[in-house]
Amino acid sequence: MFTTALSPSEYSELLAFIRLLAEESGAIIRRYFRSEYAVDSKADESPVTVADRQAEERLRELIGERFPTHGILGEEFGHHQPDAPFQWVLDPIDGTKNFISHSYLFGTLIALMHEEQALLGAIHQPIVQDLLIGDGKTAWLNGAPVRVRACASIEEAVFLTTSHYSVADYQNGPAFEAVAQRAGRYHTWGDCHGYYLVAVGGADVMTDPVMNFWDRAALAPIIQGAGGRITDWQGSDPLYGSGVIASGGVIHDELVRLLNPEG
Amino acid sequence: MFTTALSPSEYSELLAFIRLLAEESGAIIRRYFRSEYAVDSKADESPVTVADRQAEERLRELIGERFPTHGILGEEFGHHQPDAPFQWVLDPIDGTKNFISHSYLFGTLIALMHEEQALLGAIHQPIVQDLLIGDGKTAWLNGAPVRVRACASIEEAVFLTTSHYSVADYQNGPAFEAVAQRAGRYHTWGDCHGYYLVAVGGADVMTDPVMNFWDRAALAPIIQGAGGRITDWQGSDPLYGSGVIASGGVIHDELVRLLNPEG
Repeated sequence: MFTTALSPSEYSELLAFIRLLAEESGAIIRRYFRSEYAVDSKADESPVTVADRQAEERLRELIGERFPTHGILGEEFGHHQPDAPFQWVLDPIDGTKNFISHSYLFGTLIALMHEEQALLGAIHQPIVQDLLIGDGKTAWLNGAPVRVRACASIEEAVFLTTSHYSVADYQNGPAFEAVAQRAGRYHTWGDCHGYYLVAVGGADVMTDPVMNFWDRAALAPIIQGAGGRITDWQGSDPLYGSGVIASGGVIHDELVRLLNPEG
Repeated sequence: MFTTALSPSEYSELLAFIRLLAEESGAIIRRYFRSEYAVDSKADESPVTVADRQAEERLRELIGERFPTHGILGEEFGHHQPDAPFQWVLDPIDGTKNFISHSYLFGTLIALMHEEQALLGAIHQPIVQDLLIGDGKTAWLNGAPVRVRACASIEEAVFLTTSHYSVADYQNGPAFEAVAQRAGRYHTWGDCHGYYLVAVGGADVMTDPVMNFWDRAALAPIIQGAGGRITDWQGSDPLYGSGVIASGGVIHDELVRLLNPEG
């Protein structure tokens, strides 16, 4: 995947740089976890913390110093150099509501894209300091390769989504409930924690009925790197469709069919 | 609460001893998190890991050395000295299925009881190394006092349970779903993580429709210590009834009423 876009030395430089991004943004985020902080509100009412903004500022600063020709798209500060061939896509705190609830189920999402193609993706949990990186061929948790599980039936699957009652707002709610009820276990362990669990072989399916671009760009290199499959809710390109389904792969087509009944 | 059972110096010795128990069991549990390990099966089919057993063995050893006259009740190895006035109640890994899923939503539960009364409770998350201790009057997270939130309406509440589809197996499922749907946010962030979130003021309600004694003994000193309320599902003593409801307090009676509709 990298042969056209990156040399081997550029590639290892990038992996080290992503570790630096995770360390620096993580140090900021840890400072605000469970502390008193101002909670701001954007137009769409999602809570945005000071930590979110400071972490994205630091990420943009580090990228701008090291790769001044690269573009940067982040949730907080818009699109810098949108026509550059290399684009960084950032969500400093994916799962801001979970962060505000003092839960560990949030993380920093970092993706590097080259001409509409996601090359590298990372999920960092700043409290645990777990860093999951994928390049579409391999995925590593804290440097050690990880693999999805080969779950072969919905009845055995650990099946996840972010918010139970939100699914019906965007996709076929009854179809979703039927699959969730059949699953071996069903939990709303949401946001990037769910994709982390699929990639490291702890859960079998993670679903989100709707997603922003900065929440999804990092996911395909990780899930595919761990040997899994990732599509939008209807089975197409996970970067641009509606929602995301990530799985170990064996039951992926069956899931897409069940979640999208005809008629 | 302690005046009858413990002197001030015995009390501070006990708090320090609980920190030691958390550190020692946590070191064992961390070793097995996300590593290859044998998963055993008990009669009730819940997975029990080697980590669970080794951690309980270490806890029993430490308690036996320091307090040889105390009783010990643990999930893995039964009841030692059941007639002693002081009883330790242990669940080394509460949330074993979450542990096996490589999720952070598990923890070690430690309670000290005196003549049927829970004196001290602790929830320890061994990966994050968060230690929450309560004595019924105060609760501390890593040594700093914590308080519940004063959420005044179900519509604003972050409402939690462990497993969505399991509620109906033990309690009134439709009544539960009606409350979950009204809640500001609803997640299945289960096992001790949910009680931790209520105690530290991150979530407003945690519910479990059914619980073992070793999963509930630690909870009342923590939730009450943080200024919250905890009862069984029907509003009675949380130690012996069916299920548990923990909340910030303001909406507790309303919740009990809504979850137990007449007729």
